[in-house]
Amino acid sequence: MSSSVAVAGASGYAGGELLRLLSTHPEFEVRTVTAHSSVGRRLGELHPNLHTLGDLVLQETSAETLAGHDLVFVALPHGHSGPLTDMLPDDVVVVDAGADHRLINENDWHRFYGGDWHGAWAYGLPELPRQESKQREWLREATRIAAPGCNVSAVSIALAPAVAAGLVETDDLVSVLSVGTSGAGRALRPGMLASEIMGSANAYKVGGTHRHIPEIVQDLRWAASGRGETSTADIRISFTPVLVPMSRGILATSTARLAVGATEDDLREAYAAAYGGERFIQVCEPGRFPATAEVLGSNLASIGLAVDHDARRLVAVSALDNLVKGTAGAAIQSANIALGLDEGAGLPIEGVAP
Amino acid sequence: MSSSVAVAGASGYAGGELLRLLSTHPEFEVRTVTAHSSVGRRLGELHPNLHTLGDLVLQETSAETLAGHDLVFVALPHGHSGPLTDMLPDDVVVVDAGADHRLINENDWHRFYGGDWHGAWAYGLPELPRQESKQREWLREATRIAAPGCNVSAVSIALAPAVAAGLVETDDLVSVLSVGTSGAGRALRPGMLASEIMGSANAYKVGGTHRHIPEIVQDLRWAASGRGETSTADIRISFTPVLVPMSRGILATSTARLAVGATEDDLREAYAAAYGGERFIQVCEPGRFPATAEVLGSNLASIGLAVDHDARRLVAVSALDNLVKGTAGAAIQSANIALGLDEGAGLPIEGVAP
Amino acid sequence: MSSSVAVAGASGYAGGELLRLLSTHPEFEVRTVTAHSSVGRRLGELHPNLHTLGDLVLQETSAETLAGHDLVFVALPHGHSGPLTDMLPDDVVVVDAGADHRLINENDWHRFYGGDWHGAWAYGLPELPRQESKQREWLREATRIAAPGCNVSAVSIALAPAVAAGLVETDDLVSVLSVGTSGAGRALRPGMLASEIMGSANAYKVGGTHRHIPEIVQDLRWAASGRGETSTADIRISFTPVLVPMSRGILATSTARLAVGATEDDLREAYAAAYGGERFIQVCEPGRFPATAEVLGSNLASIGLAVDHDARRLVAVSALDNLVKGTAGAAIQSANIALGLDEGAGLPIEGVAP
Amino acid sequence: MSSSVAVAGASGYAGGELLRLLSTHPEFEVRTVTAHSSVGRRLGELHPNLHTLGDLVLQETSAETLAGHDLVFVALPHGHSGPLTDMLPDDVVVVDAGADHRLINENDWHRFYGGDWHGAWAYGLPELPRQESKQREWLREATRIAAPGCNVSAVSIALAPAVAAGLVETDDLVSVLSVGTSGAGRALRPGMLASEIMGSANAYKVGGTHRHIPEIVQDLRWAASGRGETSTADIRISFTPVLVPMSRGILATSTARLAVGATEDDLREAYAAAYGGERFIQVCEPGRFPATAEVLGSNLASIGLAVDHDARRLVAVSALDNLVKGTAGAAIQSANIALGLDEGAGLPIEGVAP
Repeated sequence: MSSSVAVAGASGYAGGELLRLLSTHPEFEVRTVTAHSSVGRRLGELHPNLHTLGDLVLQETSAETLAGHDLVFVALPHGHSGPLTDMLPDDVVVVDAGADHRLINENDWHRFYGGDWHGAWAYGLPELPRQESKQREWLREATRIAAPGCNVSAVSIALAPAVAAGLVETDDLVSVLSVGTSGAGRALRPGMLASEIMGSANAYKVGGTHRHIPEIVQDLRWAASGRGETSTADIRISFTPVLVPMSRGILATSTARLAVGATEDDLREAYAAAYGGERFIQVCEPGRFPATAEVLGSNLASIGLAVDHDARRLVAVSALDNLVKGTAGAAIQSANIALGLDEGAGLPIEGVAP
Repeated sequence: MSSSVAVAGASGYAGGELLRLLSTHPEFEVRTVTAHSSVGRRLGELHPNLHTLGDLVLQETSAETLAGHDLVFVALPHGHSGPLTDMLPDDVVVVDAGADHRLINENDWHRFYGGDWHGAWAYGLPELPRQESKQREWLREATRIAAPGCNVSAVSIALAPAVAAGLVETDDLVSVLSVGTSGAGRALRPGMLASEIMGSANAYKVGGTHRHIPEIVQDLRWAASGRGETSTADIRISFTPVLVPMSRGILATSTARLAVGATEDDLREAYAAAYGGERFIQVCEPGRFPATAEVLGSNLASIGLAVDHDARRLVAVSALDNLVKGTAGAAIQSANIALGLDEGAGLPIEGVAP
Repeated sequence: MSSSVAVAGASGYAGGELLRLLSTHPEFEVRTVTAHSSVGRRLGELHPNLHTLGDLVLQETSAETLAGHDLVFVALPHGHSGPLTDMLPDDVVVVDAGADHRLINENDWHRFYGGDWHGAWAYGLPELPRQESKQREWLREATRIAAPGCNVSAVSIALAPAVAAGLVETDDLVSVLSVGTSGAGRALRPGMLASEIMGSANAYKVGGTHRHIPEIVQDLRWAASGRGETSTADIRISFTPVLVPMSRGILATSTARLAVGATEDDLREAYAAAYGGERFIQVCEPGRFPATAEVLGSNLASIGLAVDHDARRLVAVSALDNLVKGTAGAAIQSANIALGLDEGAGLPIEGVAP
Repeated sequence: MSSSVAVAGASGYAGGELLRLLSTHPEFEVRTVTAHSSVGRRLGELHPNLHTLGDLVLQETSAETLAGHDLVFVALPHGHSGPLTDMLPDDVVVVDAGADHRLINENDWHRFYGGDWHGAWAYGLPELPRQESKQREWLREATRIAAPGCNVSAVSIALAPAVAAGLVETDDLVSVLSVGTSGAGRALRPGMLASEIMGSANAYKVGGTHRHIPEIVQDLRWAASGRGETSTADIRISFTPVLVPMSRGILATSTARLAVGATEDDLREAYAAAYGGERFIQVCEPGRFPATAEVLGSNLASIGLAVDHDARRLVAVSALDNLVKGTAGAAIQSANIALGLDEGAGLPIEGVAP
């Protein structure tokens, strides 16, 4: 029997992508969609691509509308999920695609987000390699799950195996990401107009200010230690996102200084060990590096590896679809785990290309 | 009286851009255009955007067709310029937009390009800050000039002032570039088809294999020392270009570990000192970072700076048009210097945006 | 039990899209993929987005490799399918995504394609409204099916109900299509380089020369009459495709002079009657017109209608994904019908947007 | 001596493009830039591509700030220019890039725009072929000039010679335009977000509702008759703009039923006669059709012609840059004429491609 599902924040891009994937999920049935300024409108007006769900009518986002479902996905701007989900019954499985419950360190929350901190939930990156490899166990017990930030997944997946295996130095990581525009959401801002974006590339949140940085640090500390407790590893990362003219996709180029004695073979073994059994992470054969088109619309993340001996750095290039493996797909994958379903239920693997 | 000009390799993108800029240059008159497989065709067939020069007919690329001009621009695939330009008379000013005469170290040539090395020429990056600041003097005396690689200019301009001033450590630089497709030239390759590029980003020449790396190292050694001689500075750079869906433009994100005690004020002073008098380099006010659209069609390079205290790195974001400041504009700028003209003659500053 | 499937011409974009859709089809199992110059390569090398099928190895395209399957999809350049499929056993269901068996009139074949004509097959546009509405019957009996041309489907779907109902004059139709680049296939041609396409629009095959014109005429004659026989209706269409910077999608703007007395209500009724029961054709509510993004990756075609009283023309705007409803999806839809399966098996309806 | 220039509405895309072109105009000096909500900001904040003019500060748009210049360009939303320019002294040359003074028929104004009509000005399309060919005379006497709408120029230039020569029927014209996003201006609207536009095409103002229709009709009536008076020609046009993923450019496909006996030779002669002496209009050789990239950044309009004998229609494909020949370039070209300067002063001809 299907689980009944509600999506809060259905009018945005993350909400729309949750609904696109949920529409063909074999075990979930979308009953309720909620929004704020679009209450009363047909879903099809906001997401004309959602042909089979178009007649659902957006309701007010509130604990009342959301309660009574088996599963609630929350796709709200940060700061809005905490107060709302506090009021939901404990037996409802809640998966938050936003940031409110990702950070375990309250100071990080205050520094990068501000406002009240509502505590960390089980973290929805099941593939994150950790020395005690208990990431999935955490999710299996959970009724509250925080899906990772899209850039975070791209970088953490790319670097974690090397960090976990001690093959790179962790205090001078550098990641530069080419990111598509849908990650910026649907809010109207001058810089997001098509005329400004097409034919141009520009960096933003330069110099250590992006909110995804503390989350990457948290992930990589986990990679270096055990569940829940942060390690004492000194993780430092220079992180720069570059907006490029495509709607979807993140291509992260992450580099880390090689630990003394670390070889390319060591690294390939570590990545194979970490991800060999993962259906949603692919490590490319030597010499190949992924393009984001390969994973468009798919829940797969793909990683290519190179060792630069002159620069003494590992270069890990990772690609994912920010709206799928970066957001909605990750949320559904974690929900599948929490509900004891096939982890890949409803999640596409083939990318839509060209 | 105008100088008579020939362009060798007029059928490609670099050749086309040279001609676009030359068509309105107040002191140059294009007399001859040459090519290889397109000999006998009208220029307008290959570059329908070149309306005023469209009736020029492409001749064979040879010393005979090129000799007899005051100024020859060469835009040929690497390995083709050396043998050809060896045969040109000494009094012809030759500016090579290709790679054949950029590297002063023969071993670097053999490792990254292969084939015969034809020696280094005066290097056409007049703004490169050097301790003895003799870059322009070199060009003023020159009849043979090598214009820099497009990615090289983007990175060298962004890092050289910090290197010259000793404000960063030079042995662990990291640059990741978002680059437009025109830099790959007009050769037919499956990966360059529009269907493969649009909506996608992909990295190439990952792991220290790109040919522009030794040239960046050379530039930054110059930045740390005097003209012509390489310094003993240990320059190491992890360099990754990422192809993104735009025709023109390079956005380089370059990071360098801060030297002990270096402050943001120190850095801003060094960049102001290096570029304050340069009309074709702009350092953005704090908090602003350039987009490539700002310099599309323009000979300007624009740089934004940030200091990331957590990561202990300088982040320099630079934007230029790979075909203008990255290639054709740089070549014309150097020719202007060599011929004693106004350095900016014929070179646009305003970008074509949106 | 699954039907065993072969795809001939698996290295191109149409072949790739067939495989993307087949990979999740509940009743089909891809056993064999064939190609020409790529024989011996892994499918994943050519289509890195096809993660689950990547290890299939491309075999030679021949009757021997293809025979022995229940179902063969052919995605070859025109002229190659005829001789090949002549040699396949009668009990194999063959669906040709190419042009060889679409035209019932041999003269049209010679004029627009040239070479030997191999006869027409059952025509894979089940939704085409015909006065005797026997399009699906034809497919139900068929073991040889020709899927329509992508532009043809976009135009025929948009105009056929009005033609069938006699609400427009048929001798002065005008269609202009914005088409994505993937329709041009994977062959290397200078005009298809990303640098030439991005930021630009250009028309091609202007002035009545496009090969899809006789097929549109054929469809609209069917729309005006009974199965198989052409009507005597005088169908004339000015057809201009415009290449625009997107990989996928066709947006066709088709106009037809209104018949005397025809009203917008009449037209809406005719389209509702024609398509009300169709799951893969959507007629938008008055005032709304589709964008191609709504149907990206989907087998849906969407149509918006307007009546321009000043110009005395119906304007029908139709959107479809050229690789899905325009090619691979249409082929699979017809195969489903021919094999007695659910017509929509394996075919996505929701579009991948933004 | 330079003329002093003010630009009203400098914060938008049309204003920005006026300033880009004016920055290198040999006879004009920009003294004043005005805006509404951006008053007090540096021009460089709004148009970072305008490097040499970046320090101009935006003033309030008012008759006081604008008076006292030799030449005023107005780039305001429709309805705002009329009341403002009524108050400017008669001896100031005013060129309006907006719609307020284009239509000579007050009823058309009320039907398509609404609000007060402020009368028609001299019409800034000097190349429009008219039987008495007095278009330029009108501009030479003018101190008030209305530059045409961007789509209008694309269509009128493409069809006017055929209409003027009586070679096509005028009562059933059909134009479909692929248009870039900058034509929609800088206002924030959900449909103009980059995520919605990239990878998609959509039609808007379908069915005879676009405001540029009456202006095209007016132009083509002029083409059929004498200056100022409208002819009695019955001009009807089905006009559909399609938004495609590029910032700049219009590619208009315009078709007209051939008059009885009209041949392709007749048509080519008519276009040669109309445009042979025009430096900013190019008629392509038979078989060639322009791409918008050829005229990006340029004041040129390019036209390709074909005759479709089956469809009995002329097909004219025209390309221009909506911000240059479509708006700012046209405005400057007309100002040059009005002020007795070289008509092409400050106007680029070569396009920026690829």
